[in-house]
Amino acid sequence: MSLVHPPSAVVRAEAAERLAGLAIPAGALGRLGELAVWVAATQGAVPPEPIERIRAVIFAGDHGVADHGVSAYPKAVTPAMVRTFLAGRAGVSVLAAQHDVTVRVLDIGVDDDLAGVDPAVQAFKIRRGSGAIHLEDAMTPDETRAALDAGAAVAVEEIAAGAQLLVSGDMGIGNTTPAAALIAASLGVPAADVTGRGTGIDEAALAHKIDLVQAALDRAGERVDDSIDTLTALGSPDIAAAAGFMAAAAEAGIPVLLDGLISVASALMAERIAPGAQAWFAAGHRSTEPAQALALEKLGLDPVLDLGMRLGEGSGAVAAVPIVRSAALLLRDVARLADLDLG
Amino acid sequence: MSLVHPPSAVVRAEAAERLAGLAIPAGALGRLGELAVWVAATQGAVPPEPIERIRAVIFAGDHGVADHGVSAYPKAVTPAMVRTFLAGRAGVSVLAAQHDVTVRVLDIGVDDDLAGVDPAVQAFKIRRGSGAIHLEDAMTPDETRAALDAGAAVAVEEIAAGAQLLVSGDMGIGNTTPAAALIAASLGVPAADVTGRGTGIDEAALAHKIDLVQAALDRAGERVDDSIDTLTALGSPDIAAAAGFMAAAAEAGIPVLLDGLISVASALMAERIAPGAQAWFAAGHRSTEPAQALALEKLGLDPVLDLGMRLGEGSGAVAAVPIVRSAALLLRDVARLADLDLG
Repeated sequence: MSLVHPPSAVVRAEAAERLAGLAIPAGALGRLGELAVWVAATQGAVPPEPIERIRAVIFAGDHGVADHGVSAYPKAVTPAMVRTFLAGRAGVSVLAAQHDVTVRVLDIGVDDDLAGVDPAVQAFKIRRGSGAIHLEDAMTPDETRAALDAGAAVAVEEIAAGAQLLVSGDMGIGNTTPAAALIAASLGVPAADVTGRGTGIDEAALAHKIDLVQAALDRAGERVDDSIDTLTALGSPDIAAAAGFMAAAAEAGIPVLLDGLISVASALMAERIAPGAQAWFAAGHRSTEPAQALALEKLGLDPVLDLGMRLGEGSGAVAAVPIVRSAALLLRDVARLADLDLG
Repeated sequence: MSLVHPPSAVVRAEAAERLAGLAIPAGALGRLGELAVWVAATQGAVPPEPIERIRAVIFAGDHGVADHGVSAYPKAVTPAMVRTFLAGRAGVSVLAAQHDVTVRVLDIGVDDDLAGVDPAVQAFKIRRGSGAIHLEDAMTPDETRAALDAGAAVAVEEIAAGAQLLVSGDMGIGNTTPAAALIAASLGVPAADVTGRGTGIDEAALAHKIDLVQAALDRAGERVDDSIDTLTALGSPDIAAAAGFMAAAAEAGIPVLLDGLISVASALMAERIAPGAQAWFAAGHRSTEPAQALALEKLGLDPVLDLGMRLGEGSGAVAAVPIVRSAALLLRDVARLADLDLG
């Protein structure tokens, strides 16, 4: 993919100037002021438009490692949760309904045929489950490229449907393992630094998960210097699709609000594939996973929320949506200092 | 005032049980889960009702200390901002419009006659400005009691109008000085621990402000052991009114979402006046003022947002409204684990 153009520096400066002229003490909006300037720069508009059309896409997939004791839940939860998204009853569904965010769920690599489900959900399916990354590659290089292309195609569709802001969500038992491995590989840190408890494993399972991530990193070796090889060896179709989605959004100049570990791992891969993409990303929340903090630091992103959430699904990003909207509205609608009647 | 009854422990336990049975890994909602349980307990209902009717009241007043070099802004800003609230153009106005929160502004102690403004805004006015607290009492004991009664009457009116959740906001140049003094007096800590930069004063002005707060504490002496005397010596009519508002809300069993320094100082005084009131309070955000953190710790409250805001007006609380709403909706609407189709 091509180099990504940054949001407008000129508009950013104009937005900062407008912010300084509001009937609000300098700096008193804190992060909301910074977010407002970022939103304006991504839109190329001062004041920014209200962010009305937000679209979340959940990339679902299963992971071979889930059969190797890295998760508190069985793999059957993945297709069950796909059905729960479609029924509008998952955590992210409730938050999205609250904030008028559309949710689209796509089966990219679920290890189930999802009988009876709308075929559109499987339109971009790459394969059933990924390889267990400590033993074998997650997928073939062709599958990696197909997954990236699928994600990019979805981004193009969502942008054509009017999205002003995109969110990527995840669902897949075992997915914190490849996400942690991708972050470790991209940052050059050992498994112990990136591996967390996911949905809630105990001390012994965590030690086992660290060993498994380290084995995957050792197996990948120097292939981690190449982004496609890294995704092929350590990733999964769903994470690759999310990375393609984010890279395409950035290339199209549409901002992305990141969620937790899986989303941030995808963002890191998007930045490797499309350098400069990260300027189009904001971090919705800080999760409890250690690798998420490391990846956010690498991306230079400071999350909006820090609520101890670790649900995935895009839930932390969608929970942060009203705050990002607030930022744009404040920069747009607050009175200017010059307009105050000081008697 | 009377002892405040706590939110229902039985309902709290039922809510925690419902939370544990959702199709969400244990603890994965983090603070949202805790907030959901608190909301249910305050409502006495599992699942909780959606929080639709939220009412914010801004208690405005001037402060004698503003004439003594403790603020970056002149006192004329206070009445100008009252007019800006009425025009719906202040920071909190924009956030409240976004979240469908009603905003009522009351002149409790503004040092201006607010000519031409709707007389209802001044219906609870106690006096024009407070005494400079390093030199004299902020007001008389009768004025303190009248301000507390005014705030309580406003809470009763807002609850009668259907409020499910109340927010108190502030406006008043110089108000971080009495708020810091009230917190220092209530916690028994020196001025240097509580005094911050308010709207943005420099190092020299901060040193002067610390001296002034310490002089006020020294002047008040042992009177700080009594809550009415503390407000009389160190507070202001607007802060006393907010304290009365919060105490009355707690007595009526209606929860309050706290804002920044002024709001939290009022909450601390509400707890002193009506022991047990703090169980009905949640903290909307963490401000940059050091005394706010100390007071929140004393109240046992962990804020929802931490965005580096220091605007006042109730803005940090109103910014947090969608998160509190999310908590209630998640506990209400997410599928139960038992309902998942695991094949």
